[in-house]
Amino acid sequence: MIRAIAFDAYGTLFDVHSVRALLEQMYPGKAAALSALWRQKQLEYSWLRSLMERYEDFWSVTRAGLVYALKNQGIEPAPADIERLMGQYLRLDAHEEAPAALRALKAKGVRLAISSNGSPAMLEAVVKHAGFDTLLDAVISVDPVRVFKPHHKAYDIVVDTLGLPAGDILFVSSNGFDVAGASYYGFPVAWIQRISGQAEELGAKPAHSIRYLTDLVELAG
Amino acid sequence: MIRAIAFDAYGTLFDVHSVRALLEQMYPGKAAALSALWRQKQLEYSWLRSLMERYEDFWSVTRAGLVYALKNQGIEPAPADIERLMGQYLRLDAHEEAPAALRALKAKGVRLAISSNGSPAMLEAVVKHAGFDTLLDAVISVDPVRVFKPHHKAYDIVVDTLGLPAGDILFVSSNGFDVAGASYYGFPVAWIQRISGQAEELGAKPAHSIRYLTDLVELAG
Repeated sequence: MIRAIAFDAYGTLFDVHSVRALLEQMYPGKAAALSALWRQKQLEYSWLRSLMERYEDFWSVTRAGLVYALKNQGIEPAPADIERLMGQYLRLDAHEEAPAALRALKAKGVRLAISSNGSPAMLEAVVKHAGFDTLLDAVISVDPVRVFKPHHKAYDIVVDTLGLPAGDILFVSSNGFDVAGASYYGFPVAWIQRISGQAEELGAKPAHSIRYLTDLVELAG
Repeated sequence: MIRAIAFDAYGTLFDVHSVRALLEQMYPGKAAALSALWRQKQLEYSWLRSLMERYEDFWSVTRAGLVYALKNQGIEPAPADIERLMGQYLRLDAHEEAPAALRALKAKGVRLAISSNGSPAMLEAVVKHAGFDTLLDAVISVDPVRVFKPHHKAYDIVVDTLGLPAGDILFVSSNGFDVAGASYYGFPVAWIQRISGQAEELGAKPAHSIRYLTDLVELAG
């Protein structure tokens, strides 16, 4: 019996690659490479800082990933350019079907939450920008536990905040590492096969594999 | 005062991309992509399994990375092909200057060790294949602590095995995440800028940045 749904934010509700238009405008011909490397390093640094017990918030980790990506492409970034690009993270586009999916699920009486690596300020901005603030019952950042997904503490805080056993919370993510972490943790997981239809070889199988957020409406019963 | 040197194995003493010749023979035109993705996933899975507290040894993680890479390139791998490729990991080439560097350092009376994610059986094979078994005083695998670098336990075991304070052990690695982890841990670190001359944006600076393993002979005093 699903009593709440916890959505991953970046890549699942929000399109992390919606920064590409500004990247292309600023660095013509390099947007695809920059966007992919920015995202890869953002994630790598979140995992490595967690492992090294050297937490910095996701805003700082996201900036570090951007700086790495720019330098890698031979760009010596000016501080103003970095701030301009970081600003895009506060107004990422929601994935096209996300508003309709959230509204339909809300109408069914399921509690809706975000479970994200993002810092509280980042999440507040991007949620408000998409108009999701009136649809969500909770926006849960890993920041209070100072470790990123897929560490169990990042999932503990979801269970604790919602006050429900993991088995009653449908966890929704497009990110393979998060699908594995949440599945091992004990959530029923719906993997949105948006980023890739190729599963990570981490030994954990999600309960559901679907293509769109709107496919959740049927799953939520 | 440097009393011992701990070398990372994969990428530092041994060339992980020496699997390319066999990959090219088996999958013409795809070796570069396969080799890069294999290595990337091998590392990602080592970090993610560590974070999820779902340790499997590096042989298993390396195989999982290979399977992901092959599928990603549209190859449905036969078990025999996977075993053939995994076998290459037991006879990776040493980097060209590695034997001369180890011999010169040994002649100076410095204790030499390997500090590696590799499982004991993998390390024994690759060390013997390169003829390094008579040069090394210790081959230290993370396997007994069941977590991969850069978790502090993977470095604790180096200090414990060598019986020296971290400050007396020069830690040598080509891998940015390992350079960061070992530096934060308290080792003086020599970063071999072989894989990339671009530092990771993780906030840790190595004590030394050099190009070749033979540059260590001067550093070791």
